[in-house]
Amino acid sequence: MNTIKINLFGESHGEAIGVLIDGLAPGIKIDLDFMRAQLDKRRAKGAISTPRHEADEPELISGFFNGHTTGTPLCIMIRNSAQHSGDYAATKDIPRPAHADYSAEKKYLGYQDYRGGGHFSGRLTAPLVAAGAICMQILASKGIHIGSHILQVANINDQAFSDDVSTLAAEIAALDKLYFPVLNEATGVAMVAAIEEAAKAQDSVGGIIESAVIGLPAGIGEPFFDSVESVLAKLLFSVPAVKGVEFGLGFGFAGLKGSEANDPFIAEAGEIRTATNNNGGLNGGITNGMPLKLRTVIKPTPSIGQPQQSVNMKTAEPVQLSIKGRHDPAIIHRARVVQDSMIAIGIVDLMTARFGYLWQL
Amino acid sequence: MNTIKINLFGESHGEAIGVLIDGLAPGIKIDLDFMRAQLDKRRAKGAISTPRHEADEPELISGFFNGHTTGTPLCIMIRNSAQHSGDYAATKDIPRPAHADYSAEKKYLGYQDYRGGGHFSGRLTAPLVAAGAICMQILASKGIHIGSHILQVANINDQAFSDDVSTLAAEIAALDKLYFPVLNEATGVAMVAAIEEAAKAQDSVGGIIESAVIGLPAGIGEPFFDSVESVLAKLLFSVPAVKGVEFGLGFGFAGLKGSEANDPFIAEAGEIRTATNNNGGLNGGITNGMPLKLRTVIKPTPSIGQPQQSVNMKTAEPVQLSIKGRHDPAIIHRARVVQDSMIAIGIVDLMTARFGYLWQL
Amino acid sequence: MNTIKINLFGESHGEAIGVLIDGLAPGIKIDLDFMRAQLDKRRAKGAISTPRHEADEPELISGFFNGHTTGTPLCIMIRNSAQHSGDYAATKDIPRPAHADYSAEKKYLGYQDYRGGGHFSGRLTAPLVAAGAICMQILASKGIHIGSHILQVANINDQAFSDDVSTLAAEIAALDKLYFPVLNEATGVAMVAAIEEAAKAQDSVGGIIESAVIGLPAGIGEPFFDSVESVLAKLLFSVPAVKGVEFGLGFGFAGLKGSEANDPFIAEAGEIRTATNNNGGLNGGITNGMPLKLRTVIKPTPSIGQPQQSVNMKTAEPVQLSIKGRHDPAIIHRARVVQDSMIAIGIVDLMTARFGYLWQL
Amino acid sequence: MNTIKINLFGESHGEAIGVLIDGLAPGIKIDLDFMRAQLDKRRAKGAISTPRHEADEPELISGFFNGHTTGTPLCIMIRNSAQHSGDYAATKDIPRPAHADYSAEKKYLGYQDYRGGGHFSGRLTAPLVAAGAICMQILASKGIHIGSHILQVANINDQAFSDDVSTLAAEIAALDKLYFPVLNEATGVAMVAAIEEAAKAQDSVGGIIESAVIGLPAGIGEPFFDSVESVLAKLLFSVPAVKGVEFGLGFGFAGLKGSEANDPFIAEAGEIRTATNNNGGLNGGITNGMPLKLRTVIKPTPSIGQPQQSVNMKTAEPVQLSIKGRHDPAIIHRARVVQDSMIAIGIVDLMTARFGYLWQL
Repeated sequence: MNTIKINLFGESHGEAIGVLIDGLAPGIKIDLDFMRAQLDKRRAKGAISTPRHEADEPELISGFFNGHTTGTPLCIMIRNSAQHSGDYAATKDIPRPAHADYSAEKKYLGYQDYRGGGHFSGRLTAPLVAAGAICMQILASKGIHIGSHILQVANINDQAFSDDVSTLAAEIAALDKLYFPVLNEATGVAMVAAIEEAAKAQDSVGGIIESAVIGLPAGIGEPFFDSVESVLAKLLFSVPAVKGVEFGLGFGFAGLKGSEANDPFIAEAGEIRTATNNNGGLNGGITNGMPLKLRTVIKPTPSIGQPQQSVNMKTAEPVQLSIKGRHDPAIIHRARVVQDSMIAIGIVDLMTARFGYLWQL
Repeated sequence: MNTIKINLFGESHGEAIGVLIDGLAPGIKIDLDFMRAQLDKRRAKGAISTPRHEADEPELISGFFNGHTTGTPLCIMIRNSAQHSGDYAATKDIPRPAHADYSAEKKYLGYQDYRGGGHFSGRLTAPLVAAGAICMQILASKGIHIGSHILQVANINDQAFSDDVSTLAAEIAALDKLYFPVLNEATGVAMVAAIEEAAKAQDSVGGIIESAVIGLPAGIGEPFFDSVESVLAKLLFSVPAVKGVEFGLGFGFAGLKGSEANDPFIAEAGEIRTATNNNGGLNGGITNGMPLKLRTVIKPTPSIGQPQQSVNMKTAEPVQLSIKGRHDPAIIHRARVVQDSMIAIGIVDLMTARFGYLWQL
Repeated sequence: MNTIKINLFGESHGEAIGVLIDGLAPGIKIDLDFMRAQLDKRRAKGAISTPRHEADEPELISGFFNGHTTGTPLCIMIRNSAQHSGDYAATKDIPRPAHADYSAEKKYLGYQDYRGGGHFSGRLTAPLVAAGAICMQILASKGIHIGSHILQVANINDQAFSDDVSTLAAEIAALDKLYFPVLNEATGVAMVAAIEEAAKAQDSVGGIIESAVIGLPAGIGEPFFDSVESVLAKLLFSVPAVKGVEFGLGFGFAGLKGSEANDPFIAEAGEIRTATNNNGGLNGGITNGMPLKLRTVIKPTPSIGQPQQSVNMKTAEPVQLSIKGRHDPAIIHRARVVQDSMIAIGIVDLMTARFGYLWQL
Repeated sequence: MNTIKINLFGESHGEAIGVLIDGLAPGIKIDLDFMRAQLDKRRAKGAISTPRHEADEPELISGFFNGHTTGTPLCIMIRNSAQHSGDYAATKDIPRPAHADYSAEKKYLGYQDYRGGGHFSGRLTAPLVAAGAICMQILASKGIHIGSHILQVANINDQAFSDDVSTLAAEIAALDKLYFPVLNEATGVAMVAAIEEAAKAQDSVGGIIESAVIGLPAGIGEPFFDSVESVLAKLLFSVPAVKGVEFGLGFGFAGLKGSEANDPFIAEAGEIRTATNNNGGLNGGITNGMPLKLRTVIKPTPSIGQPQQSVNMKTAEPVQLSIKGRHDPAIIHRARVVQDSMIAIGIVDLMTARFGYLWQL
């Protein structure tokens, strides 16, 4: 991150979590209702989510005055309220498989706040959504829109985003209204059923989120080291559970020939564009004016109720671990708005690098 | 990049290309033969590569004295010698499909050096290999080894890296000796044949590179925003033609359940490790002591001899484009050492963040 | 700032002010009593300070668990409590001379929180003192001690720090106990009288603060652009009212010859040191093992009760301005601990760059 | 440095020295004659400088095409040609007083290139002047002009810059034509005589450089940590021999009252400005539209012919050191253009942060 400096703080069972954003222009009228609506998309709801329900009310501590950004560092804090810290003390030396417990123990030398995953809890993504809401608002005012849907859960696949820009715009607009974001409603029903089934089996599922950005001008990106892919991947790989990121055809490029993969250039009414969009709107790490397309894979939630094999970190004794607590059989529907948010932050950073922060107004 | 600051300069048909690295400790004895051997892996050879052959002799301009690093910024320069600049002038307004020509025109307002892809040429990866050689040397002296092989070309698949650490170590050591790096020799023969066939058809192929790192301690990584995945993906997505990066099972996580995907913890002789390594050695963005595993997809080389559809950027007239020049039907075998280099740079950065630069000695 | 990333947030009359510090090692036992004692040195007291008295109780929101740092970003918040916001509304379009009101209006386009100087209030230095307390504690545990005294107020001069290291150590230790920090007690009495006199005249005074650091090893500093002078000056010039920074003899070098200014090297019991310390412990931007010495000038507090000439920013009409509010006739005695704190932050950054963050333990 | 990333490389007696600048806009037509003229101001000439004369011809290795910047990293290299490396080998273990020899030995563990001061040689400022020339050219095209003069050498004082903006503009223009930059010609003659006298005595002199910038808009600066003072001081304190930096009245503020020091606001033809400019064009770390004024102190050149006391770093034996080589009795006249350059780099950085890099065009 360069022009937009963002840092995240807090632990799942501490007093509060929050985000500090520097680099916003003064004079942005913040739409708090939109911020709350975005946070609502991340909220746990129904049988497909954890029963831990948090109010997640964002408090704008600084950098905000009379309804607008001031241009000084903006701190958003969200208080923690629904902690059951007792759930974790008994198992603090037993690392949960596929969680950060063991690697954090090694990095933080045992001083990490282990309660509820501490700094590694998915809860930390709530302030990112609040920050992302401001960035999405900035982008929307410039005609740049971001949308994500669940392309896959378990082995159920949604249809991919349309290659037609106006259809894609409609798809993005429609997704904004959905808590469980899919393009094909029937697919969504099947996915929810699969998640509920996993929940009953005290198990969890993973999946793939597909995102698209429309309205980006050509010429954005700062290679060599700050290509659009680099900037977005750095942000997306910071999100817990993301284990892969691909742009355009992504891993689908592996089996293709150049003659199949290359996007021919054409002109429509004097405007240059590509006939296909296999490269996902990016050439050489720079936008080419076509919709930006990317996909991430979200691994299955590591916390499951089924007994698992672990080890006591102090004694190296084997332990049969059954995670009680309150957990999500799937996080992919909640992760979607986090993904939108990270993309928004990255794009505001890249646009600001090129146009200066007054561009945000 | 934080503790290791690296910047790349130069254009394909300019006087020279180079890299400036800051953050190296003083007193590292640089093995120039190893650096040359690494550059040799990136060199174009045979019918599977471009006929443009460069000497690629690295000159250490600064930060190097009496055979050792001095600790001041180290500049490595490689002169350009085999340019045929005339090849490009005629087509400077005709963007090559899937190349950076058009997006660079938009970003650089027409002032970019368009000859041979300029700053976007694959040639720019040569100085990265030179810088990476120093980082690989540092890591090797600590027992940390990196290796990559071609997992897929066209639709031919090599076997994956072994899950057994000592077998994996042997595989990495063997790859170091190969110009066309595969684990299964017969696979390699088939892949080379597929590339030669594409060359004859004036076409190109893509593929997948799998990398592994052994010897990493647990506890490395700087989440939230500098997770190991974030740091490595940022570097890898800067490499031309990389369109996807995944860690551990990567996109394979999408169809799995938590009970299938989670890596159980076990203890062997008092040492904690995981029974499987689906997470590729990373939990919560931090190393867990298991081998780090990742894969990138390399899209088919965009430069192909077959006629393609393009547009004159000045007139918006359609143009039938046949790229003459000298190009690679595949770059995946040459990209392998670039991938090793980028991983090495990222890991030295992360280790230095934790242990200070004197650790490098 | 590199290895220690610090950011400051909040406005004088907002809900809270705070600091976010990233880069601290896990496992530092934070001495909250020391932090409070440091904040107490910055507190307004007596006739020489503003009557606005704040509780300034630091809340450690994150990165702190069971009495120790966790190694994740540490957020310290201090609530604002004693605001009289009504004082400012009437004069928001009348910039106070030598304050940031006018330049902030230009930079923040009128969206700044103008109440009490907003983000530019001296209040913002309180969280810096809290952060600095942690850094001073780290340094003290390594035998590195920082002290500052008022070298000049109005035209009254304190004696300079001793050139003898053990005398200097005693001076630093003694200063820690003083609210009005001077080496010569009688000088302090005269300075306080001068400040009280200025207060009666509804005026204010400036002065010079001299600082020293003992116990620094030779070889710290990251030239070219992160010389010790560069790192410390960048931090010190961020403190409101600092208009000059000099190291060693500073501006006194202007009239000297090389033969007078150069510090000869000598050896004492096999240890190399310099016979004099005109360079203030720094050669080539790197510590040489001698005490680091620097001075800053603190301009007179801009807020004075006397009528001053200003202009209405909206109408460009001239205005006679009499600042009511509650202000400090001098801030130099309160600024001393801010200066100590900034130096401490800078030195922990430089030490961490060299030795890694585990050095902090 | 944020939007303009600059790094310096090379050693005094290596193959070349150079600078890498990233963040320049594409399409800046570089005036190479101006760059050479700037380098000429830094060149050693006459009896007041070292007899080591270098060609200092800048080579633009990258980022430059058809006479314009391309927008990719621009590398400027200057070959070393006139080295007498034999001068230094004999004394490599004898640190020269007030030089970086000893502190560099500690930092670089003996691996530094010790010849001619290596990376710490004043020669390293030549590439900074080349980079600064580009920045000054950008600024001049926006009506922003920078000038510096020698305010003091030994105990001889030049007149200070005028407080009248149009007089100041004329002074800055006139300084551009002088190799020995003073406002009062007679003063310059006396200063040169003092330097020649020091040269005869095998000694050296220090002094003060005063700089001014006109044409800056109000509202530039990025507090809290990137105040204009912070950004410029960080750069200026990186220049060898600078031991103090002050803005506006600087240390002169210490003896003043607020009523004397504050700059009243007035309006002239609807334009707001200050009646005086004691704050040197900066309030709260942000420009206020008045001329920016600063001064640095340049310590006497440490290399002098007179015998000096030193110590053998290997044996800790005392040594009488007589520096032979070829040295400058004063560097202040050569340092002037370095100071202009550093200020230019800092201001382009700050302007680009606010307006984006396209502003540079």
